Amino acid sequence: MSPALGNTVSSLQRSGTFINTLIAALTICGQQLFSSFTFSCPCQVGKNFYYGSAFLIIPALILLVAGFALRSQTWTITSEYCCSCVPQLRRISLLERRLACLHFFSITGRALVAPLTWLAVTLLTGTYYECAASEFVSVGRYRAFDNISAGERQEILAGFPCCRSVPSNMILVRDEVALLHRYQSQMLGWILITLATITALVSYSLARCCSPLTSLQHRYWTNHLHNERELFEQAAAQHSRLLILQRIKKLFGFIPGNEDVRHIHIPSCQDW
Amino acid sequence: MSPALGNTVSSLQRSGTFINTLIAALTICGQQLFSSFTFSCPCQVGKNFYYGSAFLIIPALILLVAGFALRSQTWTITSEYCCSCVPQLRRISLLERRLACLHFFSITGRALVAPLTWLAVTLLTGTYYECAASEFVSVGRYRAFDNISAGERQEILAGFPCCRSVPSNMILVRDEVALLHRYQSQMLGWILITLATITALVSYSLARCCSPLTSLQHRYWTNHLHNERELFEQAAAQHSRLLILQRIKKLFGFIPGNEDVRHIHIPSCQDW
Amino acid sequence: MSPALGNTVSSLQRSGTFINTLIAALTICGQQLFSSFTFSCPCQVGKNFYYGSAFLIIPALILLVAGFALRSQTWTITSEYCCSCVPQLRRISLLERRLACLHFFSITGRALVAPLTWLAVTLLTGTYYECAASEFVSVGRYRAFDNISAGERQEILAGFPCCRSVPSNMILVRDEVALLHRYQSQMLGWILITLATITALVSYSLARCCSPLTSLQHRYWTNHLHNERELFEQAAAQHSRLLILQRIKKLFGFIPGNEDVRHIHIPSCQDW
Repeated sequence: MSPALGNTVSSLQRSGTFINTLIAALTICGQQLFSSFTFSCPCQVGKNFYYGSAFLIIPALILLVAGFALRSQTWTITSEYCCSCVPQLRRISLLERRLACLHFFSITGRALVAPLTWLAVTLLTGTYYECAASEFVSVGRYRAFDNISAGERQEILAGFPCCRSVPSNMILVRDEVALLHRYQSQMLGWILITLATITALVSYSLARCCSPLTSLQHRYWTNHLHNERELFEQAAAQHSRLLILQRIKKLFGFIPGNEDVRHIHIPSCQDW
Repeated sequence: MSPALGNTVSSLQRSGTFINTLIAALTICGQQLFSSFTFSCPCQVGKNFYYGSAFLIIPALILLVAGFALRSQTWTITSEYCCSCVPQLRRISLLERRLACLHFFSITGRALVAPLTWLAVTLLTGTYYECAASEFVSVGRYRAFDNISAGERQEILAGFPCCRSVPSNMILVRDEVALLHRYQSQMLGWILITLATITALVSYSLARCCSPLTSLQHRYWTNHLHNERELFEQAAAQHSRLLILQRIKKLFGFIPGNEDVRHIHIPSCQDW
Repeated sequence: MSPALGNTVSSLQRSGTFINTLIAALTICGQQLFSSFTFSCPCQVGKNFYYGSAFLIIPALILLVAGFALRSQTWTITSEYCCSCVPQLRRISLLERRLACLHFFSITGRALVAPLTWLAVTLLTGTYYECAASEFVSVGRYRAFDNISAGERQEILAGFPCCRSVPSNMILVRDEVALLHRYQSQMLGWILITLATITALVSYSLARCCSPLTSLQHRYWTNHLHNERELFEQAAAQHSRLLILQRIKKLFGFIPGNEDVRHIHIPSCQDW
């Protein structure tokens, strides 16, 4: 790999872009696969809307929850700052509080990638929206619907997303309605993408500008957090080993790996 | 592997997400394979419901049992805290009891992954539900069923999930019933997924908040348990070797692997 | 391998699940291969039942016997506790007797894995059952059988599992009968699997609860047995070499592999 390219890649990785792109790509592939295997509009009055909405919204909600839940930092922050069950033994300084906010902000950003991608892809594809909105189209201006009662009209409209169940004189109407729904769905998709991009840009700039840390301090802080965790784990491992070795010596009379095994004894039932 | 990706992967593994995802993926693949090879709706009155239900529920129950049984910790906790056969030699402190609850809770969570995945996938696919529910659909509003006796109607309805055994004037009805069942099945699937996600989130948050351990203590405790098991096994292995060597020396008069074999003697029948 | 995954794998191996899964997987693959190469229903009156039953039951019996015979512990326990030919030189304590029961119990469990898997897989596949049960179906309600004598009916029914030998007006009947047999076979399979799972769970829990050993002691005991066998074999091998070397030195006057061969002498006829 050329040094310039490698440099770009490593800087992308550091800013989290790499992982965000990966998440978005996986979401897009997953949506296409999932949709082609499981989605088939019921085409019955009063069911289309719930079916389409469920396929639009529930996966996005689940991806949002998963995005928050899968980050272990979420739980660290939650239990440290929000839980009133834990007695507040130590004061939290203003700087710490602002850093936690910053951290939470970055976690939220990462968690929103997958659900926003799901919504954008499904809206740009349009089939879910077409099914959900099929009953709510106004067909007063089409002459084919003049002599048809409200109940029958509902049924015909609900049958539009399925190709088979439409009377022959309404095929033209159905095609027009389909194009209209596609237009609405894709415009919604573009609006969503634009809003998300602008929000991401503005909030990232604000966070960077109003952060209590300069760029160098931020890098130092990240490094500091990483070192803290690593050294703590090292110390904890050594501490627990020492404790356990003492208990084992009491039980068996010697320390494992030690050659000095004079006082070996068989533990009684009481000791276990 | 890049450090950012590696970091994410290791943090996923620590929170158990990696294994849960693996379990869910294996369940999905297994369900698809199993279903394509073995499932064929009997299409006979009074049998469809039992057949479909068996394929829906029994695998989920077996996966649940297996999920509990395969975790060795389940048995450790069961025998330590629940069995009244073992005399209660030592007191169990409140902290220990709460930690055992927490542990049991995490085991239950892991054990529920596979059966819930099975149910969700089968409901979203819809074929099992379609077979099980085929006899219970109300077809009063279709004119094709007007001149047909109740017994024949039952038989025709039971034949819907199989493609071959339907009169030609009922193909449209069958397609509508299939779409209806698919809708019901998939909506049930979405409700199940949503409830499971919310329950998981709420209970995990509660467990994290009301845990007697802070986040750092939790990490220390996990590490401590791991160290304890490892060192105990090391010590037990050494202890049992020493005991056996003593017995062998009594029997044969020397220690295996030792060059000092002056006192070798043939063991008498009594010694064995 | 990642530590979390490795941990899971090692805990699986310790609880015997790994080997059980391997046995079950091999049985499934073996059944599929064996079945596709050798099974072809004879489709002749009076032979289908014996043929199908033989393929269902005999392999299961052989797998059961093999499961017992392949475990060396079976023979150790049998010769130690059951054979009256060996004089009872030493008393067997109650604890030892209970441990032997526990051991026998675990051997039985392992030995049942393969035959139960065989039965479950063959019943869920359904082809063996279809062949065995083909002659015993009641076809009174089908009009195609109205003008056919009992002997001919038997022959036609026996021909159902083979695709070639069915009159054209009975193809629909054959399809229905095939679906019925598949239903019966798979329901039997599910019942078998459910009963086996429940029995395994209950008996394992009972064994674990009423075991004379705690969880830690159990682990120690398993390790102890393994060490004992290994060290005994090592010592016995060295002991027997030493004894034989002494006897050879007496006979030939030197030790094989030793350079010090001054006292070589030709053995007399008496020495042999």
